[in-house]
Amino acid sequence: MAQEAQAVSGAENGAKASPVVFTAAKPWLVVEAPKANDAVLFYKAAFGAEELSRVNDPKRKAELELPLIRSAELKIGSSVFVVSDLTDDSSSPAKSAVSGLVFCLETESVEAAVAKAVAAGAVSEDELTEGEGGCCGGVVGKVKDPYGNLWLICSPAKKCGDVDA
Amino acid sequence: MAQEAQAVSGAENGAKASPVVFTAAKPWLVVEAPKANDAVLFYKAAFGAEELSRVNDPKRKAELELPLIRSAELKIGSSVFVVSDLTDDSSSPAKSAVSGLVFCLETESVEAAVAKAVAAGAVSEDELTEGEGGCCGGVVGKVKDPYGNLWLICSPAKKCGDVDA
Repeated sequence: MAQEAQAVSGAENGAKASPVVFTAAKPWLVVEAPKANDAVLFYKAAFGAEELSRVNDPKRKAELELPLIRSAELKIGSSVFVVSDLTDDSSSPAKSAVSGLVFCLETESVEAAVAKAVAAGAVSEDELTEGEGGCCGGVVGKVKDPYGNLWLICSPAKKCGDVDA
Repeated sequence: MAQEAQAVSGAENGAKASPVVFTAAKPWLVVEAPKANDAVLFYKAAFGAEELSRVNDPKRKAELELPLIRSAELKIGSSVFVVSDLTDDSSSPAKSAVSGLVFCLETESVEAAVAKAVAAGAVSEDELTEGEGGCCGGVVGKVKDPYGNLWLICSPAKKCGDVDA
């Protein structure tokens, strides 16, 4: 009976019955292109960061020796963060990240999570898109919180070939 | 023989023999005062964040209903981040954090960690200080990476009364 009431309440809200569960909130460092590779090397040398995975930009520019980094996942202690080259590529999930902090939230319920954030006062940016990279490998929603920070809400990046640890 | 050479090399660098081990790298969101409490409430409502601990500013201003937040630790999934009110209090470790990302790195070897980061190209900011808060409860060093981000290098915050989970 209690379960039934809950399901009805969920339907009334227009939300999916499944609860929103986030598995991680990874901060994203966006570096002026093409310096992200240097930044990754620096974080390894300075802070002992371990590179978990890397996705390069498929559109490699002729004048660049190395491809731009779409996202590299680094781990320090128990914490994971993402480093990317900032480009004007409109398909990059980090393109709105000119300044301020970007968090990457992972969940299986992207649409419900965006709705919940907006109900709490966040502003939705753009439509849901398909992402690619260490953080956002599937559906990506974007919301800006009332304090100027961007939160990417993404399904987990299952497509990424993680480096065997 | 190899160990001896290593020890001599370490002494020559002026660094401690103990290796630098970071246990966590927590990002820090600095919010225009006095909105950090609203921000914490928002992150709970929007993203289901769990509050692990909170340290208020001891210098409560008369015109404020609530004390300012020096640092509140929030957890989403496996990730922990810190939220603070941005004030002009010179004793706050977050005072240089007007813009850009702040990471809080936890280690038992603060001095050696700062030296290693500087050797890798970071710029040391300020002397070592004593911090207070969810992130920086002991000795605090500050370095700026070549990409404009501030890294606080701190001994773990043992003095903070963590909420029992």
